[in-house]
Amino acid sequence: MNNRIENIAIVGGTHGNELTGVYLIKKWMKNKSLVVRETFSTKLLYGNLKAIKEVRRYIDYDLNRSFKLEALEGVNEDIYESIRANDINNSLGKKGEKNTKVDFILDLHTTTSNMGLSIVVSNDSKLTWQSISYLCDKVPSLNIYRWEGDEEKAFLDSIAPHGFAIEVGSIPQGVLRADLFLETEKLVMHLLDFFEQYNNDTLKKRSIKIEYYDHIKLVDYPRDNNGDIVAMVHSDRQDKDYELISKGDALFLTLDGDTIVYDGDESLYGLFINEAAYYEKGFAMCLARKRVKSINFD
Amino acid sequence: MNNRIENIAIVGGTHGNELTGVYLIKKWMKNKSLVVRETFSTKLLYGNLKAIKEVRRYIDYDLNRSFKLEALEGVNEDIYESIRANDINNSLGKKGEKNTKVDFILDLHTTTSNMGLSIVVSNDSKLTWQSISYLCDKVPSLNIYRWEGDEEKAFLDSIAPHGFAIEVGSIPQGVLRADLFLETEKLVMHLLDFFEQYNNDTLKKRSIKIEYYDHIKLVDYPRDNNGDIVAMVHSDRQDKDYELISKGDALFLTLDGDTIVYDGDESLYGLFINEAAYYEKGFAMCLARKRVKSINFD
Repeated sequence: MNNRIENIAIVGGTHGNELTGVYLIKKWMKNKSLVVRETFSTKLLYGNLKAIKEVRRYIDYDLNRSFKLEALEGVNEDIYESIRANDINNSLGKKGEKNTKVDFILDLHTTTSNMGLSIVVSNDSKLTWQSISYLCDKVPSLNIYRWEGDEEKAFLDSIAPHGFAIEVGSIPQGVLRADLFLETEKLVMHLLDFFEQYNNDTLKKRSIKIEYYDHIKLVDYPRDNNGDIVAMVHSDRQDKDYELISKGDALFLTLDGDTIVYDGDESLYGLFINEAAYYEKGFAMCLARKRVKSINFD
Repeated sequence: MNNRIENIAIVGGTHGNELTGVYLIKKWMKNKSLVVRETFSTKLLYGNLKAIKEVRRYIDYDLNRSFKLEALEGVNEDIYESIRANDINNSLGKKGEKNTKVDFILDLHTTTSNMGLSIVVSNDSKLTWQSISYLCDKVPSLNIYRWEGDEEKAFLDSIAPHGFAIEVGSIPQGVLRADLFLETEKLVMHLLDFFEQYNNDTLKKRSIKIEYYDHIKLVDYPRDNNGDIVAMVHSDRQDKDYELISKGDALFLTLDGDTIVYDGDESLYGLFINEAAYYEKGFAMCLARKRVKSINFD
């Protein structure tokens, strides 16, 4: 039998202007029975407390880029998110230690991109992918984006041995959408069911193949010599997340009306297209390759 | 013949996270000929300079609520927007004086509500409404929202004797959408054409009837005793701006899953439904009555 899941954490408001997570946590804190299960305990947590109050992504620095091991070794008192990351690490981690306080972290996000119901995963653990495959089975519209790299080691969910983020959109920053709120909640309920079945060893023994999108690269906005953005995401790309982009397809429309096309030889899928928070991070979309993974339940 | 229009101003970024106006001003500043016409001069202006840099609606106070006559009489040096409002008033006004520096102000906004291409007008001048009727004729999908009241005397466009705001959505804060960028630009070009024809006295003499939405009241989110929001805009209302709401129609879904319905006797139209910036202002939507106005060109 597997090691049991003892403790999980669900975090909302890691970005303070992504209200869906904030209000789900608020709902469940008021009615804890909704997330209580028999075989494990569920910790509910608001991520960026100050940013939630100000309805901003962050105060001084992106909290969801603040969990690198090196960064957690010291606290920079001038940066609110460094202090907060340290607190969260103490509460859920500590990252890198053998026995972290929680086994699994679910981090709730929204995006202005038309990503529908998505999972962003940077963790390769077997349990993480078993849970994902379970969710794909329950919610066929769910899309999986595997985003691994240096920056992703800084994600909040990297504190625990297992976990991922839910990204749901399109939702403007600072807005609740009832439809996507309910869909997100349903997905979380399925995840809790998974843990319960995992602990009770009642998951069907089988092998499942799931499709996922593997991160290949970022595409920045066309910029002038001062670094100012001089083009918009082309209407052919807008709201077309998870669609294939081939050589010659329009990517951008410059302010002057010229179209800029994709000139890569390999056709790739566009994700996080026109996400508000990524203007400053320097990318207009991500490109990914579709791949298939076999997940074993044994 | 009419009094000529000598000077107009187009303002973008009155709210720093509404990028469409910011980038239209940027485009036109780089290529001034796009907004230069023979019979009047066009001033281009960024509204909230600091907020544009920080991609926030405002720094200390909403700039588009900072232009009441009383407020403009003194400057509060502790509030950035008070300083900026004073500068703008000096540059375009002064409000209340007989000869303001510009005759007409067009203020460019976006909204997270699904308002399509809309005009928000708080000015009752004949010229303002003539220009609006001209635009309705050119762009049949255009909707007009007349929003008069005490707060609206504080709008930036209230400095000049004539003017209005363009509101276009749905667009998340901090995002450019190419389609709506182009539609907004086209609308502005029609407005410049109108001024040119007005000055040249070549507008057709006629009377036009236009439909508009007259502001009746604001509907706040259901809140708990602490003032915290406890419900979301119902999916039946989401994205349904300019649709009729009748007694018994769903308005909100509480976090606990209960539906709250509209209980007014008069059916009214919903506008600015689920606008991000209005969570803090305390309203989830506006209700309006549809009316018809005759505009004379004589």
